[in-house]
Amino acid sequence: MSHKIRIALDAMGGDHGPAVVVAGAELALARHPECEFAFFGDAALVTPLLSARPALEAVSRLVHTDVAVRMEDKPSQALRYGRWKSSMWLTIEAVKKREADFAVSAGNTGALMVMSKFELKMLPGIDRPAIAALWPTLRGESIVLDVGASIGADAEHLVDLAVMGAATARILFGIARPTVGLLNIGVEEVKGLEPVREAGRILREEQLPDLDYVGFVEGDDIGKGKVDVVVTEGFAGNIALKTAEGTARQVGQYLRDAMNSSLSARLGYLFARGAFRRVRARMDPRRANGGVFLGLNGIVIKSHGGTDAEGFAAAIEIGHGVVQDELLAKITAALGRHGTAPRHALGGAAS
Amino acid sequence: MSHKIRIALDAMGGDHGPAVVVAGAELALARHPECEFAFFGDAALVTPLLSARPALEAVSRLVHTDVAVRMEDKPSQALRYGRWKSSMWLTIEAVKKREADFAVSAGNTGALMVMSKFELKMLPGIDRPAIAALWPTLRGESIVLDVGASIGADAEHLVDLAVMGAATARILFGIARPTVGLLNIGVEEVKGLEPVREAGRILREEQLPDLDYVGFVEGDDIGKGKVDVVVTEGFAGNIALKTAEGTARQVGQYLRDAMNSSLSARLGYLFARGAFRRVRARMDPRRANGGVFLGLNGIVIKSHGGTDAEGFAAAIEIGHGVVQDELLAKITAALGRHGTAPRHALGGAAS
Repeated sequence: MSHKIRIALDAMGGDHGPAVVVAGAELALARHPECEFAFFGDAALVTPLLSARPALEAVSRLVHTDVAVRMEDKPSQALRYGRWKSSMWLTIEAVKKREADFAVSAGNTGALMVMSKFELKMLPGIDRPAIAALWPTLRGESIVLDVGASIGADAEHLVDLAVMGAATARILFGIARPTVGLLNIGVEEVKGLEPVREAGRILREEQLPDLDYVGFVEGDDIGKGKVDVVVTEGFAGNIALKTAEGTARQVGQYLRDAMNSSLSARLGYLFARGAFRRVRARMDPRRANGGVFLGLNGIVIKSHGGTDAEGFAAAIEIGHGVVQDELLAKITAALGRHGTAPRHALGGAAS
Repeated sequence: MSHKIRIALDAMGGDHGPAVVVAGAELALARHPECEFAFFGDAALVTPLLSARPALEAVSRLVHTDVAVRMEDKPSQALRYGRWKSSMWLTIEAVKKREADFAVSAGNTGALMVMSKFELKMLPGIDRPAIAALWPTLRGESIVLDVGASIGADAEHLVDLAVMGAATARILFGIARPTVGLLNIGVEEVKGLEPVREAGRILREEQLPDLDYVGFVEGDDIGKGKVDVVVTEGFAGNIALKTAEGTARQVGQYLRDAMNSSLSARLGYLFARGAFRRVRARMDPRRANGGVFLGLNGIVIKSHGGTDAEGFAAAIEIGHGVVQDELLAKITAALGRHGTAPRHALGGAAS
């Protein structure tokens, strides 16, 4: 526990830039005093924020760069002007050089993915990275992947996602043999996309030692926590994640409206304030903020671009959890047991 | 208003069969006394249920069949044993013969789709049917389609969905030029699936008179009610719909747990009971039960298989709304204006 955890932070990423990143790091430090930080970004903006937080400043270093990846750029554009010198690139590079245990950025997802792939390379046998999200459920938390790293997936990629997701669940949840389901639009064997069916067949037949494949799950099974790991390709996964966030916010708004609708409702709210606070905390999308990029030879966490300091701290927390438990070593071992081997000399570029 | 609305009901569909279907019809009749019903199913089961409801029985007829489509069968299997004689087939046939204004079934979605397509045929220029769902939002309701009629969509099919969805929104919501968005995983032009991008280009360039295309929307925009019509292919659409339902139930469970967690919370609940009831009503998935099959030359409503009488009545309600407003004539007219023409001699079979 006296072991230092070194964290590289892209100070310029996200909608709010350094203000949220530095404040998020301060919150993380309060929870994990063994952390050390490297900030990459515009010194003119970052230095005053650090100076105002002496405890954080004491365990931080700052690497100046005035190049920042823009949120709206294509990955290829970002790579053109941001390679070697942008805050995002330098943040990932710190992981590559083993100067940091993991990297966090709230910046442009596509650019972060491409730069991470470029710098860190993929794990043996994995073609494409994936983003794994922590999803609050009625039973606790599940891992859902891929939530948007790449669009479309063949059966092999879905099986890889199952293996990587299960390894992550083992570490984050401490479950020896996590249950895994394939997201589909019907539980019957007859339904769904061909790659999903084929992946189901492979997982059923392979009987992998590290995961317990339970079959197809539907969208409403995610929130029930029916399985520890929900596997899907990135387009549907991203839509599921965003739709769930939107629905939680929608219900929250309904509640606020209702509790203001009459005197007795307002009175009831006062009595039940503590209970409401707990519900709000459980529904808070910031709690689950932070997608883990899986499949890369290094740990990169993507924070939501629009999050606040609390959400950014949650993203750091996830990285902290997987580093403590040596995620990469365990994924690599699981992939080895699964018998995955490089299938394509050239992996397709994610965008 | 004295005009009779004739409704064909598959008495054997759904998890609970005739009990829910007959009770649902009774609720619908109470709301719309101008309705007449034709039930298709096992007389031994349906007759006693009707006899117990004299008002309903008085405006109902029953066509006996002892063949019922099973929930777990493939559409092709269902067609093999259920063609000409199953309750589902006969229900749709009543629409085909113009003996009913619309049909409702809570049975096997795939079988209902294939049988509907077989019997009713597609509207001119439409290759594949779609299921449109009514989605409660912070602004009211939106239409989301396709929520599971077929998997995958090319750009032309997405454009057809936009046209049909907008026509439905015009009728159900009374909006002259509904706003339409394409569901995608990022609002930037650069992201997403090729067919989605291509459909966006077509909709932008065609500037259709009957709809206002506003661009890409993300999963969390659905619940905000950002657009009147959300267009997506069926796999992602079904996952979004189910995920939203699951999330609403999950939050409901959090609330119940919290309101039972302490004496003051229970007291607060008592004061705010009316407000909670309103929130529950707004969140109730039964309210939005009933997918409209679009693209067919006849109106078929799919109810959730697991719903209760209240939910089944809501499905009848949707059919009632679109029939009153002559949905088919308006969709056909809109498709004509869009200039859609038969593109393929053979439409792919939905399953």
